[in-house]
Amino acid sequence: MIQLPEVIKNAVEALTRLPGVGEKTAFRMVMNMTNWKATELTTVSSALSSLQYLKICQQCGMFADENLCSICSSEGRQSIKCICIVENASDLMAIEKSGHFKGVYHILGGVLNPLLGVGPDELKMDELREKIIKREIQDVILAVNPSVEGDATCSYLKSILPTSVMVDRIGFGIPIGGSLEYLDPMTITKALENRKRF
Amino acid sequence: MIQLPEVIKNAVEALTRLPGVGEKTAFRMVMNMTNWKATELTTVSSALSSLQYLKICQQCGMFADENLCSICSSEGRQSIKCICIVENASDLMAIEKSGHFKGVYHILGGVLNPLLGVGPDELKMDELREKIIKREIQDVILAVNPSVEGDATCSYLKSILPTSVMVDRIGFGIPIGGSLEYLDPMTITKALENRKRF
Repeated sequence: MIQLPEVIKNAVEALTRLPGVGEKTAFRMVMNMTNWKATELTTVSSALSSLQYLKICQQCGMFADENLCSICSSEGRQSIKCICIVENASDLMAIEKSGHFKGVYHILGGVLNPLLGVGPDELKMDELREKIIKREIQDVILAVNPSVEGDATCSYLKSILPTSVMVDRIGFGIPIGGSLEYLDPMTITKALENRKRF
Repeated sequence: MIQLPEVIKNAVEALTRLPGVGEKTAFRMVMNMTNWKATELTTVSSALSSLQYLKICQQCGMFADENLCSICSSEGRQSIKCICIVENASDLMAIEKSGHFKGVYHILGGVLNPLLGVGPDELKMDELREKIIKREIQDVILAVNPSVEGDATCSYLKSILPTSVMVDRIGFGIPIGGSLEYLDPMTITKALENRKRF
């Protein structure tokens, strides 16, 4: 078997750290990159390295260019006294893509998971409560994914918030384009519970 | 729609340059990388950037740690007067993996393709002929992939080599584990032509 240069081995090893990239894929990528110009390699490597200087919005926890993200720095959105609580940045963007939420967000950074040592302190839930009270938020939308941990997180959040705050959880049911035939019994149960007068 | 930081956009753009990585995959990768430690990001980016310092074996064109690759620097392999001509490094490695070729290689770096402006000069075929004559090579194995351009490349190579050199092309036929039912007519034609007395 041919002994490959360290440079190649290191690059393959580096790429396998990416999600969904195994050794074969990484190797194929590196083989392709061996044909790249030095400037191209530098561009890519510095773009990836720059991720360490990514800023986080001090208010909602979203990625930001400055101290506040583009949503939190919008006065129009701040004036709406509604906050949407999500697990992570990807979930925030998914909701933002729908274009139907006009308030601000709060990124929890996870869900309560006692087995992994994630409790209310790790998710800074006290800070969140303070923020909601201080900003006189009237509506809280829990856009936390449905799972045992997600359900527990929602229950806990509801319990620590003042009773004057309206707390909703996003609706569960059949996704648009979905087919009853292929959906799991739990989703169908939820869809039946959440039926609406037609 | 939320305005994402430049840092993220650049990282996504950088990753889409990798083969088989579209915008969605790149984005998913970057989202994952936002959770990485700074040291991890530096390791990956410098490993990729180092690819520009990759050395090429002066004799066969394979990637190398030094001036010669591990195959060309092996005296045992140099002493065998047989050279295997391949299109690229991946093809070389595929043959090397089989473990049945004991001679040295020569990487062409492509095949003749007049439409793309790749002629005998671009592939340095004169140098290859000189090398074969100087090293008193007796056997040349053309391990060029079957295609119109590959066939033309093989014919051209055969025509410029001295008649004293034996030139073979690797065999075409049914791959092991392959099923006649699913193979294309061209492969079956070749397999019938290349039949062997049993």
